[in-house]
Amino acid sequence: MTATIHRLDRPEPSLEPLLQLVAGDMNAVNTVILDRMQSQIPLIPELAGHLIAGGGKRMRPMLTLASARLIGYTGTRHHRLAASVEFIHTATLLHDDVVDGSDLRRGRRTANIIWGNPASVLVGDFLFSRSFELMVEDGSLKVLKILSNASAVIAEGEVNQLTAARRIDLGEDRYLDIINAKTAALFAAACRISAVVAERSEGEEAALDAYGRNLGIAFQLVDDAIDYVSDAGTMGKDAGDDFREGKMTLPVILAYARGDADDRKFWKDAVEGRRSSDEDFARAIDLVRRTRAVDDTLARARHYGQRAIDAIAGFANGQAKDAMIEAVEFAVARAY
Amino acid sequence: MTATIHRLDRPEPSLEPLLQLVAGDMNAVNTVILDRMQSQIPLIPELAGHLIAGGGKRMRPMLTLASARLIGYTGTRHHRLAASVEFIHTATLLHDDVVDGSDLRRGRRTANIIWGNPASVLVGDFLFSRSFELMVEDGSLKVLKILSNASAVIAEGEVNQLTAARRIDLGEDRYLDIINAKTAALFAAACRISAVVAERSEGEEAALDAYGRNLGIAFQLVDDAIDYVSDAGTMGKDAGDDFREGKMTLPVILAYARGDADDRKFWKDAVEGRRSSDEDFARAIDLVRRTRAVDDTLARARHYGQRAIDAIAGFANGQAKDAMIEAVEFAVARAY
Repeated sequence: MTATIHRLDRPEPSLEPLLQLVAGDMNAVNTVILDRMQSQIPLIPELAGHLIAGGGKRMRPMLTLASARLIGYTGTRHHRLAASVEFIHTATLLHDDVVDGSDLRRGRRTANIIWGNPASVLVGDFLFSRSFELMVEDGSLKVLKILSNASAVIAEGEVNQLTAARRIDLGEDRYLDIINAKTAALFAAACRISAVVAERSEGEEAALDAYGRNLGIAFQLVDDAIDYVSDAGTMGKDAGDDFREGKMTLPVILAYARGDADDRKFWKDAVEGRRSSDEDFARAIDLVRRTRAVDDTLARARHYGQRAIDAIAGFANGQAKDAMIEAVEFAVARAY
Repeated sequence: MTATIHRLDRPEPSLEPLLQLVAGDMNAVNTVILDRMQSQIPLIPELAGHLIAGGGKRMRPMLTLASARLIGYTGTRHHRLAASVEFIHTATLLHDDVVDGSDLRRGRRTANIIWGNPASVLVGDFLFSRSFELMVEDGSLKVLKILSNASAVIAEGEVNQLTAARRIDLGEDRYLDIINAKTAALFAAACRISAVVAERSEGEEAALDAYGRNLGIAFQLVDDAIDYVSDAGTMGKDAGDDFREGKMTLPVILAYARGDADDRKFWKDAVEGRRSSDEDFARAIDLVRRTRAVDDTLARARHYGQRAIDAIAGFANGQAKDAMIEAVEFAVARAY
């Protein structure tokens, strides 16, 4: 197998090769994470630990580590920076759950439900500050620039999403802008910073950025599709959560665009909060299937997944590249 | 007049000399602030602008600018950094108002009341990220270290305050820990960074840090006293807000410690949320006056104010020093 002709059709892709690839490095990252989420204020490690120990895959720090392996970096600076990336992500999750009023994440009660919104907001702020302290300790202004910019872009994307909420006329372009900002920007930065610490070329930086960005978009597209195909028991996410919140995601955008007048009225009512019962959700599921809105959301995900794979085609073949390719395949296959 | 024998007894101190001192520089800072709070997402400048244009004194950036004048810095790097400090402060205010459920700040409706908690949380995150982008543009790792540490300390202080809420047994020491973190840390950092960009000695850095820290403590003590002496019409803060929220501040700590059994029961009930009527607040006002709890809170403020003044005694006399001394006098005189 060579990467350039690799296709997204191998049976049962798994995250296992990526986990294996970075297992040793991830132990070092976990040590940094556990050490640096500590505080003299007991609520901080208690609340942060709930989320950090709560079954997340640590996808973003894994990408930093895998990217470093792909380009042959042999130092340890990326351990601290991978922890920094995970802190930014954790802070974002804490604030997201407050913003969305979520009560369940990865099958567990959210921190805002257990400790309240104020604690989630403030511990998020703490982790965000800590992430910058870690970057400052590393000392690369270029890494600081990449991650401070990614953080600003994420926040802008979240506000963009907030103002787009319950707007049935949101198109695919603006939706892509939103997920590019709120999800893909940190995936991209997580990969890019490894090329920075390894002092690789702008071209290699850009290639890793593109891998992360396209994987991030694919990842979010599949997440948004899952809301219309899964149930909380299997995915740790409530199926229908997005629907009940009137969240505009690609399945809705496509189903609305392809629906008849009745269907469109249904979607408008749903997105504007006038239809959120179980029966309404059952109808939504039926509509997204009949219009192939979920299928085509997943087809879009495969498109971005293929772009992610092609972005790293120029790097040497080997265990790291194979694992990073299979991680993409896993990401786009999750909904099946 | 020489600074070392200066006493806090001049009539009617004013912030005017400080405002005059930094007026030119502040125009440059305001340009950076207005430029860098922009975003393609219209809600961001709209919400941020409400608070940033909302009558705040910009005390912290003024301190950065005044400190630079005090030590004879003639460059312009501190303009961008002063804006960065103001962004951190604004982000903190946005999140504070969400955490406290406040509806009024500086006499105007809070952003969370107008645009909702989610928008306030996310725009706060955006401004916080932007503040780091500004620091990265400046390029001093030492400034980044000082301000990222201050940010983490602020968040810790806010969580500490949250867990201390409604606890009548909070002592003066823990109260001081909290205001040191949530208020004084950023005052200290705002002053210190001017010595860093001017490449002054550690001793001068520490002196400016001490000025800012002690002024910050004095400032917060007076703020906490004002809650028991003023009304919203004059101060832009609702008198009794802290009381009704059961917030443990020094006036309560002292009045509780000095009260008889009946008084103590009253304070415990109030702090635990069982007494928050106008009559209850009238009794609280009476108790803090009779026990001299407000007077002594203000005496503590004068103590820290004097320490702030003494901290900069070693710098050259002149317009900057006089203005910084009078700013302290103004801060501690606000409640009279």
